[in-house]
Amino acid sequence: MKQNTNRSFRLVALSGGVGGSKLVVGLNEVVEPEQLCIIANTGDDFEHLGVHVSPDLDTLMYSLAGLANPDTGWGVTNETWDFMAALEELGADTWFQLGDRDLATNVERTRLLDSGISLSEVTKELCEHLAIAAQIVPMTDSRIRTMLQTSDGFLEFQDYFVRLAARPQVSGFVYEGANSAKASPVALEALACPGLEAVVLTPSNPYLSIDPILAISDIKAAIKSLDAPVIAVSPIVGGQAIKGPTAKIMNELGADVSPVEIARHYRDIIDGMIIDQSDSDYTEKISAMGIAVTSAQTVMKSMTDKIELARVAIKFASTIDSREKGGGDVGTVTG
Amino acid sequence: MKQNTNRSFRLVALSGGVGGSKLVVGLNEVVEPEQLCIIANTGDDFEHLGVHVSPDLDTLMYSLAGLANPDTGWGVTNETWDFMAALEELGADTWFQLGDRDLATNVERTRLLDSGISLSEVTKELCEHLAIAAQIVPMTDSRIRTMLQTSDGFLEFQDYFVRLAARPQVSGFVYEGANSAKASPVALEALACPGLEAVVLTPSNPYLSIDPILAISDIKAAIKSLDAPVIAVSPIVGGQAIKGPTAKIMNELGADVSPVEIARHYRDIIDGMIIDQSDSDYTEKISAMGIAVTSAQTVMKSMTDKIELARVAIKFASTIDSREKGGGDVGTVTG
Repeated sequence: MKQNTNRSFRLVALSGGVGGSKLVVGLNEVVEPEQLCIIANTGDDFEHLGVHVSPDLDTLMYSLAGLANPDTGWGVTNETWDFMAALEELGADTWFQLGDRDLATNVERTRLLDSGISLSEVTKELCEHLAIAAQIVPMTDSRIRTMLQTSDGFLEFQDYFVRLAARPQVSGFVYEGANSAKASPVALEALACPGLEAVVLTPSNPYLSIDPILAISDIKAAIKSLDAPVIAVSPIVGGQAIKGPTAKIMNELGADVSPVEIARHYRDIIDGMIIDQSDSDYTEKISAMGIAVTSAQTVMKSMTDKIELARVAIKFASTIDSREKGGGDVGTVTG
Repeated sequence: MKQNTNRSFRLVALSGGVGGSKLVVGLNEVVEPEQLCIIANTGDDFEHLGVHVSPDLDTLMYSLAGLANPDTGWGVTNETWDFMAALEELGADTWFQLGDRDLATNVERTRLLDSGISLSEVTKELCEHLAIAAQIVPMTDSRIRTMLQTSDGFLEFQDYFVRLAARPQVSGFVYEGANSAKASPVALEALACPGLEAVVLTPSNPYLSIDPILAISDIKAAIKSLDAPVIAVSPIVGGQAIKGPTAKIMNELGADVSPVEIARHYRDIIDGMIIDQSDSDYTEKISAMGIAVTSAQTVMKSMTDKIELARVAIKFASTIDSREKGGGDVGTVTG
């Protein structure tokens, strides 16, 4: 297997799991899948039950393979739970649920990693078996682990997010390993494509899903030096997060729960931002930061919603002259 | 967890998986389970799909827990195969079948081993969860791997037995790691019980299931120095093996496929032997080796058969005066 894809990417998306994957599914319908590269957060990866779990990679893979469970957002539809039930009978740890099929993905990933190939190559192989034409690539083949400073102490991501159901109060983030990590070669290759039309920051959690990707210095540098526009879709709508603990965390960090704060957070790398139609009052404040703004229906309930927002994103990006990039070099909020 | 069981064992059985477990189930009904210790072969253990698989330990556990699949002899009844099916869809290795429930046992075993406790302690814990009162103990906490010299080269046990369906011609055996391995402390403790009435070599494959146990020097020494009688049940009936490749292997080694050859194989450690009623013609030849002989129905199809043979074994052992042990110090046939 070789790293070089020889592909010409038109679009790069940065994504976490459940929140971002909806827009990714839309983008996958709107552009040729072969021209779409998704750089996935692996800061949530962890070792559990002896396997290497990559929750965001799997959510993206299952979503693009049409296997995702629509009720949970994670895992596969028509999943069975016989393994987990037997494990429970044996008195073992079952706080992190792995369905039978999901477990197979993780066992095979672990076997391939143990055979010495990189997570990028493993992901490519799994995507081929799932007949996914888009390129899903982990942000890095190195180990990065998102850790949270919380009222319950310094926690690993899954401990915070799953075991403790995101209840502890968050005061900061550490992306362990990010300083020395190198971007996945395919991610850099995609960002260097001459035909690249846009980079889209999907509406995943900025602190827990997008920032770990941007914490890799060569990814951030590649994005900052792009000619193509970089746009973000706000994960905050009407003062609430569409999914997950984004708004709760923003409150705990003392930040305004609004698209303005998201714009401020991303201002050193984005050229444009899509906010929800219900938040159009914020347009002026965001524009004042030198960031182009458009509003649209950003809550994606149906496939039509996903496709429509993807169309808006691509059209919006095409209107931005990225040579007049706005925004200063303001540091990201990390508590 | 402490190693010392503080139990007083009346009976010790040496067993592999499918062949031996039938008699073990019978013994478990005939004596108080708490007084039964089964020393299990772990030469077939291997690492697969990232887990530590102990086929014989599991067959014994499932058999005594009443969970064993009566059709296969291995695995559990009412097993589901969703994990394996998903693995196959991913193009992964599926030559060694692990059902969803069976996988849970192996994942939990691996997790406990990785936490630093011994295989003996792990087995004790799993048995407790399965409410097994008898003591099932691996022959050793060290790593022993049965290897075969064959017409297809030097093979690991599972490669020979499962992947190649025992087709290659066998010329010899190596129990890798046996020279330096120490017996499981509980196995030695059981063999040292003053109230021990008998040691039973179950009708498992002598070369592949019983010899690996006897290859551990302190187990063999403990058995040879016993006051209690040691008896074997012949796995050969009417010139055929009841189960598995025993007869095929004996042929390939140039040995007669008869209980006489089994007696010769075990003569330096056994005092008595139970042969099938259809093989009673061999009584004289085996007696001539100084080994007590009785014949019985050794083919166990029903629970009644298992219990009846267990009764015969215990009664037979009680008639043997082990202080007049027969047999010389003849080496085992290892091709």
